[in-house]
Amino acid sequence: MDKPKSNISMAGIEGNSVKITAPATIANLVCGFDVLGMAISEPFDEIEMKLNKENSDIRIVHTDDYKLSTDPAKNVIGAALKAMQEEGGVEFGFDITVRKNIKPGSGLGSSAASSAGAVVAANCLLNDKFSKEDLVRFAMHGEKLASGVKHADNIAPCIYGGITLIRSIHPLDIVPLSFPPLYVAVVHPQIEVKTSDARQILRKEVQLKDAIRQWGNIAGLVAGFIKGDYSLIGRSLEDVIIEPVRSILIPGFYELKQRSKEAGALGGGISGSGPSIFMLCETEKVAKDVEKEMQLIYDQIGVEYKTYVSTVNSKGVEFV
Amino acid sequence: MDKPKSNISMAGIEGNSVKITAPATIANLVCGFDVLGMAISEPFDEIEMKLNKENSDIRIVHTDDYKLSTDPAKNVIGAALKAMQEEGGVEFGFDITVRKNIKPGSGLGSSAASSAGAVVAANCLLNDKFSKEDLVRFAMHGEKLASGVKHADNIAPCIYGGITLIRSIHPLDIVPLSFPPLYVAVVHPQIEVKTSDARQILRKEVQLKDAIRQWGNIAGLVAGFIKGDYSLIGRSLEDVIIEPVRSILIPGFYELKQRSKEAGALGGGISGSGPSIFMLCETEKVAKDVEKEMQLIYDQIGVEYKTYVSTVNSKGVEFV
Repeated sequence: MDKPKSNISMAGIEGNSVKITAPATIANLVCGFDVLGMAISEPFDEIEMKLNKENSDIRIVHTDDYKLSTDPAKNVIGAALKAMQEEGGVEFGFDITVRKNIKPGSGLGSSAASSAGAVVAANCLLNDKFSKEDLVRFAMHGEKLASGVKHADNIAPCIYGGITLIRSIHPLDIVPLSFPPLYVAVVHPQIEVKTSDARQILRKEVQLKDAIRQWGNIAGLVAGFIKGDYSLIGRSLEDVIIEPVRSILIPGFYELKQRSKEAGALGGGISGSGPSIFMLCETEKVAKDVEKEMQLIYDQIGVEYKTYVSTVNSKGVEFV
Repeated sequence: MDKPKSNISMAGIEGNSVKITAPATIANLVCGFDVLGMAISEPFDEIEMKLNKENSDIRIVHTDDYKLSTDPAKNVIGAALKAMQEEGGVEFGFDITVRKNIKPGSGLGSSAASSAGAVVAANCLLNDKFSKEDLVRFAMHGEKLASGVKHADNIAPCIYGGITLIRSIHPLDIVPLSFPPLYVAVVHPQIEVKTSDARQILRKEVQLKDAIRQWGNIAGLVAGFIKGDYSLIGRSLEDVIIEPVRSILIPGFYELKQRSKEAGALGGGISGSGPSIFMLCETEKVAKDVEKEMQLIYDQIGVEYKTYVSTVNSKGVEFV
């Protein structure tokens, strides 16, 4: 077999059917608003896909309880695969069965997992016709359907794995970053924060001095990841522009952040546009301690929640 | 001899007298406004210093033609050494002879070379009493005198050498970055751009979308430096915030930038607050080709200029 064009390992493919898992992702990595994203190991969606050589129909079945539309025109999987058909010259159709475990609206890249998972699965059935960058382009159509904006900061880490920098959207420039072992504690308080609301409340202009502080921090964060310098990562996890505005939508945010740091977290912030909050930690033990603090705080506030402790997921979408 | 606290090699010291060279530096590295700086090998200042144990007088002699004040209260060397005396508990005085080759107002860190050179020389005469970070703090008083602002993006690379990130000024957080071999072509058109004017014309607010593009670029630039990825460095050398405003003060700027890139430069921009312009190149040959283009353009415009081709200077201030 030739080296796959997308460089994604395709162990576990059987005939014209394939099963994959697509992980949750954390976009807007603190000071990396709109440009940095990270894949985590849990939660993840499961997608099974069959190639349909008879026609170009896209048929979607959901086996989860999230009541998402199965109309391909209204489902992000449909939007992503349609883009692949139209822009990539694909004439076949696809039968898709999806079990979502990443709750829509959690801020954990639920729509990206669907879109990215679908295009990686389809690409496998098409003998790896497309590059990873092509796949990101197709999947971005799903994001456009979900949030109105063709962003790639969840899609890219979901497809490439690990931590990715989207240096630019026009032209698309994805830079995978190396990083040291990292554990992530995530809490998803079960409240609703609409991405469109979270975007609406941001000011369109920012102070130059704040922007300078922010780009000092993102420069530090990227250097910290690549050099494996935990202290530098921790010092750089500061957001003076987005977090002060968006955190008002998330009860308990600042207390949680402070107590997480006291429990040893390097730092963290809002995942995507919220309401989930994530904390990066150097060890699994610290991440579990942080998880306990998260649980205590939301028990006290009286908001339902889910928590996850996982590693940074260096593989992204995987075949099972 | 114990390992020096500042980690600066002190070969060439004789008794209570020392000679150093202090290199030119390029601050505001394109997308790294106020946070990224780079030391280059040419031009450089020369400072000779003697310790005076009789009293705490600071006596400055200039052997160049720049007519800078030799009153320690009005000379950046005086300001930096006075800070060292007062904040560092130093009771001795210093006799300093300076030969500046970096023209004041060139945008090449002339004041920083004086301040940084002076504190490194003094620290050597004091048996390496202070750390590099201490020295940066003292030298920043020179910058405050020169420009009204205590910035460190020329001081830090002058003292640490190479390319440094000033992640934060309050608290001071200096991150030396690794980088691949790089050559720098610099042109200094002999026109006057006052730092205060260059700062004045900047808007205090910037568009969030421009800030996002800028922090995508600085993240890419830092990743490019550390990974030694020339293509990524080149793609990231884009400034959508400062350059569009400041470039109007520098005749021929955009033509020079375009022709430098056509000659093979990775990219570049305004050095400091101008008027000097620098271009980063992968090889010395390209840097020399770029230098020729710079000369042709300013010959045509009819503005006097000086050009320099050098490597990134990984050592910073050196003892001779």
